[in-house]
Amino acid sequence: MGATLGVGMVGYAFMGAAHSQAWRTAGRFFDLPLAPELTALCGRDRSALATAAHRLGWRSVETDWTALLGRDDIALVDICSPGDTHADIAIAALDAGKHVLCEKPLANTVDEARAMAAAATKAAERGVRSMVGFSYRRVPAVALARRLVARGRIGEIRHVRASYQQDWIVDPEFPLVWRLRRESAGSGALGDIGAHIVDMAQYLTGDLLTGVCALTETFVPERPLPGSNTRGKVTVDDAALFLGRFAGGALASFEATRFATGRKNALRIELNGSRGSLAFDLESLNELRFYDGTEDAETAGFRRILVTEPTHPYAGAWWPPGHLLGYEHTFTHQVADLVADIAADRDPEPSFADGLRVQLVLDAVQRSAAANGTWHPVPEES
Amino acid sequence: MGATLGVGMVGYAFMGAAHSQAWRTAGRFFDLPLAPELTALCGRDRSALATAAHRLGWRSVETDWTALLGRDDIALVDICSPGDTHADIAIAALDAGKHVLCEKPLANTVDEARAMAAAATKAAERGVRSMVGFSYRRVPAVALARRLVARGRIGEIRHVRASYQQDWIVDPEFPLVWRLRRESAGSGALGDIGAHIVDMAQYLTGDLLTGVCALTETFVPERPLPGSNTRGKVTVDDAALFLGRFAGGALASFEATRFATGRKNALRIELNGSRGSLAFDLESLNELRFYDGTEDAETAGFRRILVTEPTHPYAGAWWPPGHLLGYEHTFTHQVADLVADIAADRDPEPSFADGLRVQLVLDAVQRSAAANGTWHPVPEES
Amino acid sequence: MGATLGVGMVGYAFMGAAHSQAWRTAGRFFDLPLAPELTALCGRDRSALATAAHRLGWRSVETDWTALLGRDDIALVDICSPGDTHADIAIAALDAGKHVLCEKPLANTVDEARAMAAAATKAAERGVRSMVGFSYRRVPAVALARRLVARGRIGEIRHVRASYQQDWIVDPEFPLVWRLRRESAGSGALGDIGAHIVDMAQYLTGDLLTGVCALTETFVPERPLPGSNTRGKVTVDDAALFLGRFAGGALASFEATRFATGRKNALRIELNGSRGSLAFDLESLNELRFYDGTEDAETAGFRRILVTEPTHPYAGAWWPPGHLLGYEHTFTHQVADLVADIAADRDPEPSFADGLRVQLVLDAVQRSAAANGTWHPVPEES
Amino acid sequence: MGATLGVGMVGYAFMGAAHSQAWRTAGRFFDLPLAPELTALCGRDRSALATAAHRLGWRSVETDWTALLGRDDIALVDICSPGDTHADIAIAALDAGKHVLCEKPLANTVDEARAMAAAATKAAERGVRSMVGFSYRRVPAVALARRLVARGRIGEIRHVRASYQQDWIVDPEFPLVWRLRRESAGSGALGDIGAHIVDMAQYLTGDLLTGVCALTETFVPERPLPGSNTRGKVTVDDAALFLGRFAGGALASFEATRFATGRKNALRIELNGSRGSLAFDLESLNELRFYDGTEDAETAGFRRILVTEPTHPYAGAWWPPGHLLGYEHTFTHQVADLVADIAADRDPEPSFADGLRVQLVLDAVQRSAAANGTWHPVPEES
Repeated sequence: MGATLGVGMVGYAFMGAAHSQAWRTAGRFFDLPLAPELTALCGRDRSALATAAHRLGWRSVETDWTALLGRDDIALVDICSPGDTHADIAIAALDAGKHVLCEKPLANTVDEARAMAAAATKAAERGVRSMVGFSYRRVPAVALARRLVARGRIGEIRHVRASYQQDWIVDPEFPLVWRLRRESAGSGALGDIGAHIVDMAQYLTGDLLTGVCALTETFVPERPLPGSNTRGKVTVDDAALFLGRFAGGALASFEATRFATGRKNALRIELNGSRGSLAFDLESLNELRFYDGTEDAETAGFRRILVTEPTHPYAGAWWPPGHLLGYEHTFTHQVADLVADIAADRDPEPSFADGLRVQLVLDAVQRSAAANGTWHPVPEES
Repeated sequence: MGATLGVGMVGYAFMGAAHSQAWRTAGRFFDLPLAPELTALCGRDRSALATAAHRLGWRSVETDWTALLGRDDIALVDICSPGDTHADIAIAALDAGKHVLCEKPLANTVDEARAMAAAATKAAERGVRSMVGFSYRRVPAVALARRLVARGRIGEIRHVRASYQQDWIVDPEFPLVWRLRRESAGSGALGDIGAHIVDMAQYLTGDLLTGVCALTETFVPERPLPGSNTRGKVTVDDAALFLGRFAGGALASFEATRFATGRKNALRIELNGSRGSLAFDLESLNELRFYDGTEDAETAGFRRILVTEPTHPYAGAWWPPGHLLGYEHTFTHQVADLVADIAADRDPEPSFADGLRVQLVLDAVQRSAAANGTWHPVPEES
Repeated sequence: MGATLGVGMVGYAFMGAAHSQAWRTAGRFFDLPLAPELTALCGRDRSALATAAHRLGWRSVETDWTALLGRDDIALVDICSPGDTHADIAIAALDAGKHVLCEKPLANTVDEARAMAAAATKAAERGVRSMVGFSYRRVPAVALARRLVARGRIGEIRHVRASYQQDWIVDPEFPLVWRLRRESAGSGALGDIGAHIVDMAQYLTGDLLTGVCALTETFVPERPLPGSNTRGKVTVDDAALFLGRFAGGALASFEATRFATGRKNALRIELNGSRGSLAFDLESLNELRFYDGTEDAETAGFRRILVTEPTHPYAGAWWPPGHLLGYEHTFTHQVADLVADIAADRDPEPSFADGLRVQLVLDAVQRSAAANGTWHPVPEES
Repeated sequence: MGATLGVGMVGYAFMGAAHSQAWRTAGRFFDLPLAPELTALCGRDRSALATAAHRLGWRSVETDWTALLGRDDIALVDICSPGDTHADIAIAALDAGKHVLCEKPLANTVDEARAMAAAATKAAERGVRSMVGFSYRRVPAVALARRLVARGRIGEIRHVRASYQQDWIVDPEFPLVWRLRRESAGSGALGDIGAHIVDMAQYLTGDLLTGVCALTETFVPERPLPGSNTRGKVTVDDAALFLGRFAGGALASFEATRFATGRKNALRIELNGSRGSLAFDLESLNELRFYDGTEDAETAGFRRILVTEPTHPYAGAWWPPGHLLGYEHTFTHQVADLVADIAADRDPEPSFADGLRVQLVLDAVQRSAAANGTWHPVPEES
């Protein structure tokens, strides 16, 4: 870990805290070829920024992201600001020769995402790398699931069943925050949590969705405006449900909702194949369920694999078998892989192109929902 | 239990065995106002019929269902033969003044189902009763779920999520049995197991689906013909997925498949409401999960209710708390309720009209799937 | 099923109802070499007896068990009366040449059990068979567990961990019923439910306990006398915990309690061996957990085997895969095996000798508990 | 977070890595009154020490713990070295006016533990604080369980059922490491993992064990010597089982084993009380099961509380509801509490006296096991 890698991060809310923990921690558990440094934190409110930088461990601050991009001691820009800022910052950073880690969803629109993917491809030719932060790919159980699928352990995939359920706005008096307005958030449950399950489904299958039929709903159409006694219109979906087909022939079902009372952060995905099945639940994130259809029926059954063995993805870097990992470990894994890829001059995954592929699906979902469920193809990008 | 109720049953395969056990057993555990008698079993193959009647406990046999209908000692006809025979037998039986219990799905087509429902309505005016055999309504946990919904314990329903997964035809060498041909079975997974989850969803919510978007698939298009070395075409769906909306505003997702490797008879349904949630899994049929959203967050959580308490539906008739019931108990409950309704001169549930309502949904699903997922309304019956 | 087997049953409470269901049902699902007939029911209260006989399907009644033993149409006596009556009836029945099925525990004392085992051995020489009703051996999942142990799938057994938890007397105002008095019940939780786990542990391991250290407790020392406003002394244990060693070297832990609030009928047993582990829970009785220690660590995990496959013990006689069985099915399996053994002139299991082996353990537990946990060997019977 | 707190840590293996992560992280998520600094790491092998200090983030090194104690920039000594070194270092550190965090078990013998507890009491009078590292007390679900017990939510406790199961030495060819020799490890499974469940049981109940009956076993008596082709004798227990009584009347059962094939780090504890029950499993460490016995039987059931709400212990410092924590978070909580206690001039828990109370139980277990299970009282410390 001779050379260092100066990191500049934009944004310091929920995702900023998680990314900071990752940058601080990765080198403590993984053998990194470059030593990440928490060089500068960027935000607009100087006072809040200074407090955050101190708390999160960043050495300096910038209140203008263009200044951040101009610094020689910054080799990588980590974008944790809201979705509507992603395209501008990411493209400029890549142009400035900075590697980029960008939170999901890649952008609020397909056009932005397409421009970002193009910029990333161009930058890669110059050795400048980019990654979109679908961090759940790096839950050890999810990475193990991908490994088993890639090895053919479940055969030809027939079904993908994914849902992401939360309940934080069930109360109709919950206020009209920015996440509930189209202009700031792009979409509601769909882009926020639906994006995760679309990416995970495409990642695990190694396949792409070709089209969807979708229904969306806004159960509570008006909510109290924050700090006001009037109400405003909710302009995003509270829930989005869609069916789809994969290029390889699998049928898929997706659901993203913020109205599943009692489900706090319940991302669940199941795959059924000709030789076996897999099931994962983020509320039990150290576990993977695997059914091996080639076993004798007498002793066949879904196995609960506790994904903490040294041979499991990422697990060996941490604790002995049976010692659980948590939510933020996925960000540490993400950073460790990204740093390794940069040093190895290799394109990281998920790429901006992967982020675009998710965006294309979300866009098709919105178009289908607007047409009351009519099938809408997902365009292929060349 | 003074008077008796002579039963004539048509068919003696899987459902016939389950119904026989119910008729033999109901009076042993429930206080029935009429004593059912296994008077006559009806089938076409006299030799097989005699064996079955002996095994299942029927006192006599008939090889012609019209003869069965002519017998004075038969007060109720129980129809367990394939779906394409239901309409003829049921309508004739009702006309003949016999009460009718008819296996699900009510019929293979909407037209047949509509005629049956009309016949049932007319017969009811004369005190002749009818019931369609959606037996899962009488799993104690399902009946308890309905009770909690009706009492408002989960509030206004937002989501219904139902799937019924099996895996018995995953092997492409599994032969082309009658259930895989449209002419005999009407549809595939859709009518066979999809019918159950449609009925259960409408029963639990006390609401009706207003329309659907559906995709269906036949993963293995040709299969070996039984007793032949050639292959024939599979003409029904292997899997059917659909989204829907309920009249009351809930969004719904349904999946019926025979390709979920490792899932043997996995009917799962979840409801999320404004005040709570419920979840049920037929593979753990003595349990109901309930989340009470009105509890303090500190101790709120999905409860595993073991539905074996004396105050739970049906459970008090059996064993002490904690002693489990099995699959066939639902048929015993069905028969016990039907006999009580007949004696009380009351219309049983689910009625033929309920069966028609399921058929209308299945029909809309097939139409939507044929149009690649286009929204298809479910017509209201007057 | 040419010849018949006339059954006379003594007792018609909880166990009587379960056994009646078994006698009525066994021949409907299993190919029995002899047809059981519910010939006579025996009890002391003529009026209650007549009602029970009608309800449960018995053809005649006897108010004196010696009269029952004198009847030529009775070939088998099924003893469901309280434990203090077992020895007298069973020994007399065997002497009279009647086969005997006797509920557990075999007796209230070791001396009685020893005499019954001796009578059974002598009777067997004349072709007269006997079985003690440890019905949980015939839960399909338990029988499958035994099969896997016998095949060496878990290797040399190191640990047995068994508990049986109920909560029906947690309320200190629950009355002082006969089960809470030593003179009628012999012991409390120990003999009632502890007997089941001792038998199951010895059955599954195929091994015998050599000694125990035990603690027992009566948490509520006095309770209201039924129909009175005074209180009486509870003279049996509310809970019994004991540790033991098996002849083959395994360590064992047992717990039987009626004070496990929220656990209704929770019999749990786990076995850890040098090559694998097994776990069973009666509240999920259609499931067996199996860990195969010979698998690759990457995909090893406890499997949930749904024990409903045609190749699983007993399951093939019932319904297709995935359709669950319930509590009373174990009694039907017990009767089916007993009839088959009688016809084949073969000694059934569990034998009275097995019942005695359980009684010897329970006796050692009581002696150890009386000496504050001092190790007490379980005597070997020659 | 003005003033700093210089930490010197002895040992840098498994526990050292976990503690380092805690010291680095606590101030990032908790508002600490003092800022911990990773001042010096102490070990004997200078080269390995330097590598570890760099990896783990320690600013300097010492190869002699007495030198560490002499440094003015060290205010707290964190002891992560093997158990036989604890007493010397801890007592000297307290004498030198350093606060002490000492890993569990507190010591290898009761005498050492008693001396340490005495030293801690004396030091506390001078404002010098000490804590023993039973980190599992600070799993949020465990802390919540304690809160519910303290509030009387489960009433009077009747049963405690605790087991800690691992399987890392099931293979008889696993070598004779230091943990399998009495001279270095004191005991086997008993002191290593049994200590955790004894402390947790005493913590959760707020009560003390008064005596035990114990059995221990060494299943594999000889193992290969590391780096040799001969075998040596295993001189510690492979498994320890014991029963006990609490002062308040509860019965308890404990099991610690390294031979539970398939169980990696399975600490499970259940409490049954007169008004409810609680159950916890370290393999699902974000969950607590709670049965409220005061609820209506119709909807009562064990609830799965996902312990990630802002009102749950520690959880609010981390992520939004539904985002899981992992194993090492408990060490961060431990450090955060310890620092707060030091700043508030308050005695931390668990104290060395609590550590001694565990040691007294372990000692009684060993004495009872040596006497084949004879009851052995746990002496009360004044």
